[in-house]
Amino acid sequence: MPVLKKVLIANRGEIALRIIRTCHEMGLRTVAVYSTADADSLHVRFADEAVCIGPPSSGESYLRPDRIIAAAEVTGADAIHPGYGFLSENAEFSQICSDHDITFIGPRAETIRLMGEKSQAKKTMAEAGVPVVPGSDGILPSMEEGKRLADEIGYPVMVKASAGGGGRGMRLVREPENFEQRYEGARSEADAAFGNPDMYLEKCVMNPRHIEIQLLGDGKGNVMHYGERECSIQRRHQKLLEEAPSPIVDDELRARMGEAATQGAAALNYAGAGTIEFLVDAEKNFYFMEMNTRIQVEHPVTEEVTDCDIIEHQIQVAMGETVTRTESPLRGHSIECRINAEDPARKFSPSPGTITAFHQPGGLGVRVDTHAYTGYRIPPHYDSMIAKLIVHADTRERAIKRMKRALDEFVIEGVKTTIPFHQQLLENEDFKAGTFDTQFMETFTFDPNA
Amino acid sequence: MPVLKKVLIANRGEIALRIIRTCHEMGLRTVAVYSTADADSLHVRFADEAVCIGPPSSGESYLRPDRIIAAAEVTGADAIHPGYGFLSENAEFSQICSDHDITFIGPRAETIRLMGEKSQAKKTMAEAGVPVVPGSDGILPSMEEGKRLADEIGYPVMVKASAGGGGRGMRLVREPENFEQRYEGARSEADAAFGNPDMYLEKCVMNPRHIEIQLLGDGKGNVMHYGERECSIQRRHQKLLEEAPSPIVDDELRARMGEAATQGAAALNYAGAGTIEFLVDAEKNFYFMEMNTRIQVEHPVTEEVTDCDIIEHQIQVAMGETVTRTESPLRGHSIECRINAEDPARKFSPSPGTITAFHQPGGLGVRVDTHAYTGYRIPPHYDSMIAKLIVHADTRERAIKRMKRALDEFVIEGVKTTIPFHQQLLENEDFKAGTFDTQFMETFTFDPNA
Repeated sequence: MPVLKKVLIANRGEIALRIIRTCHEMGLRTVAVYSTADADSLHVRFADEAVCIGPPSSGESYLRPDRIIAAAEVTGADAIHPGYGFLSENAEFSQICSDHDITFIGPRAETIRLMGEKSQAKKTMAEAGVPVVPGSDGILPSMEEGKRLADEIGYPVMVKASAGGGGRGMRLVREPENFEQRYEGARSEADAAFGNPDMYLEKCVMNPRHIEIQLLGDGKGNVMHYGERECSIQRRHQKLLEEAPSPIVDDELRARMGEAATQGAAALNYAGAGTIEFLVDAEKNFYFMEMNTRIQVEHPVTEEVTDCDIIEHQIQVAMGETVTRTESPLRGHSIECRINAEDPARKFSPSPGTITAFHQPGGLGVRVDTHAYTGYRIPPHYDSMIAKLIVHADTRERAIKRMKRALDEFVIEGVKTTIPFHQQLLENEDFKAGTFDTQFMETFTFDPNA
Repeated sequence: MPVLKKVLIANRGEIALRIIRTCHEMGLRTVAVYSTADADSLHVRFADEAVCIGPPSSGESYLRPDRIIAAAEVTGADAIHPGYGFLSENAEFSQICSDHDITFIGPRAETIRLMGEKSQAKKTMAEAGVPVVPGSDGILPSMEEGKRLADEIGYPVMVKASAGGGGRGMRLVREPENFEQRYEGARSEADAAFGNPDMYLEKCVMNPRHIEIQLLGDGKGNVMHYGERECSIQRRHQKLLEEAPSPIVDDELRARMGEAATQGAAALNYAGAGTIEFLVDAEKNFYFMEMNTRIQVEHPVTEEVTDCDIIEHQIQVAMGETVTRTESPLRGHSIECRINAEDPARKFSPSPGTITAFHQPGGLGVRVDTHAYTGYRIPPHYDSMIAKLIVHADTRERAIKRMKRALDEFVIEGVKTTIPFHQQLLENEDFKAGTFDTQFMETFTFDPNA
């Protein structure tokens, strides 16, 4: 039962600041680590201590376990919070922390490893009684076997990299004629991206929604859920806007999804915060997609509707606290818009540069999580998200109105941002009606002249 | 039953922006008015239209009904929201709006007038069954009669201007020997400040707390309350920090105070949002102090614990909606710190100037209501409040921790502010324990070297 006093945050940007905030509210001291490109970032300013861990390249800084462990040892940090991305789902890093008697604020190494192997994760979940998409029983032994199985379960099918994620190493196959070419394409992409060409196969769920359940386990067999997040508005598997609850999930479906997800996590004796992502079809059947064994970008919408601080819960569980509830009641509706330094008029191409004016919206029901400020130089080395704008209101309709109002007030000059995209998205009839799926962005077009 | 489409906000600063935000969320168009000193204020930027109504002096701009009505007529505004201060409790202005077929978002002129006459207000409330402090039955006919009454009810007593407010025209009298001098001092101050030397007398409630009940009436006989706000932390009758709920109010006391306040407002057939301020003594007896017939600076703490938008409720009632509840459930704890451009090391003397850096705190449970920004020049003509920092958490203890964290993040450079004062206040043992009264600031000393 470790008593934590000082937490090193092995991350950057808004999530590093987010974690520092909760640590300070809990009375914990904080250590920031940063690359030379991030010396002027707010997470460095607001942490109690800060250690430079290398040059701008992530591979030489935020992805270097040795440098992060050294920073923890130099500063006497007794825990490391990995945030999302970078080393957050690196089983080896979790293990290295344990080996150095540093509490890793996240699941055990074997859980991260098991859920990182997508075909193994699916098999484990199926055994725990979680609904999964029909498909291969683990890794495909060969292209021929994949093709035979596709004929059996019916087209369209997806071939997916076992080590995959973020849409890489994945192909949709609509007809038998294309199977070989698609399979080989995905396989070589997986080999290049993850150093692992193993593939598995699934029936393609048509026009699904992406809906995920937020979970917390204490590693002592207790798991709770916080309801769902609607994450279907995606572009190339990158979420753009998330909300809680989902417009299509009613109490009955929430109870079923929550119970399935809880059951899946309990089977792993899950320790920490995690998310099970489901595909939900038009008949409201849901299928396990993958489990993320870390905090997610979109966690604030859950915090807003549950009145919980999920980062605090992560830390409490890491300190040995027991999870005593099975679920959290929901209150109202929350939406998050990811504000990226990208130009929506130019296929969302990154727009790094210096922010010459930054004025964030405020007032009732508005939350901003950001590391940016007037004069901030957005480094080109990392992802382009510069702020998360989150609103809460009593209904979805009012949350949409509040978000529009907040977007109208958000002033960011000097770089292009996705604010105009979100403004148009919120006016879309399908969005407003809640009748959309993961294909939404295939047909939605941003009008640069609107 | 007026259908409103365009609201003119007869105010400036954060409250003007606050009202604009709700109007926009409700789909209402907005008109800002501004003096030449406020041309660069955010309320002017974010309103749909803006009309300059005069030079910096309030007497020539924000206090000029003729210019405000002209602005409403020119822009076709069908309603006026007066905010707080300025013309918000000016019965004549409410009447002028009616006479011009413009909806005044606030009570009827006669209600404002009645509650503005402090001795009449007290009498009205006593008749409605609201507990009042023992004292004169209305205005004192003479100094001698006041002295006789003081002997009867016992010292200490307060002599108060009937037209008073904000602590002006008010004196504490501890002994008969001082009565005449104190009475005359208050009387001439009242005459100078309000043009009305009428005085009344009350028994002095020793070491009271200032606790107020937020109300909403629909002018059709229905009144609801939203629980209480604790406002005892005051300096010279100016509130510095407010919270909801009060650390000393339990469900039973809240029910009693809420019922008394509701009863008082119902007796007025109250229309709009209003607040009844009570003094609460050590035995938890409460006494009517005064009624504010407008929105108050500290309304956000109530919004945070009730999940209501009180500005929206004001507008809905003005549009003829019926109040159907009698009270609002409470959730968690909220604190507001008023951030003033004042130097706490120099007796809170105003510190106008240009804000050279402005970075507001964010994240979970943090709300900022402000019209300021980097580069904003604080005009010396108006009050010194430049921001309200509001937090919400599940308990008072956690709200205090969150507020400390948020204050630590709040960067305002170029002018002195009360941020360091609030940081020290939050560390005070009496404050933390909730054991304070309206005399708290008499003994609290700010340490400029801390």
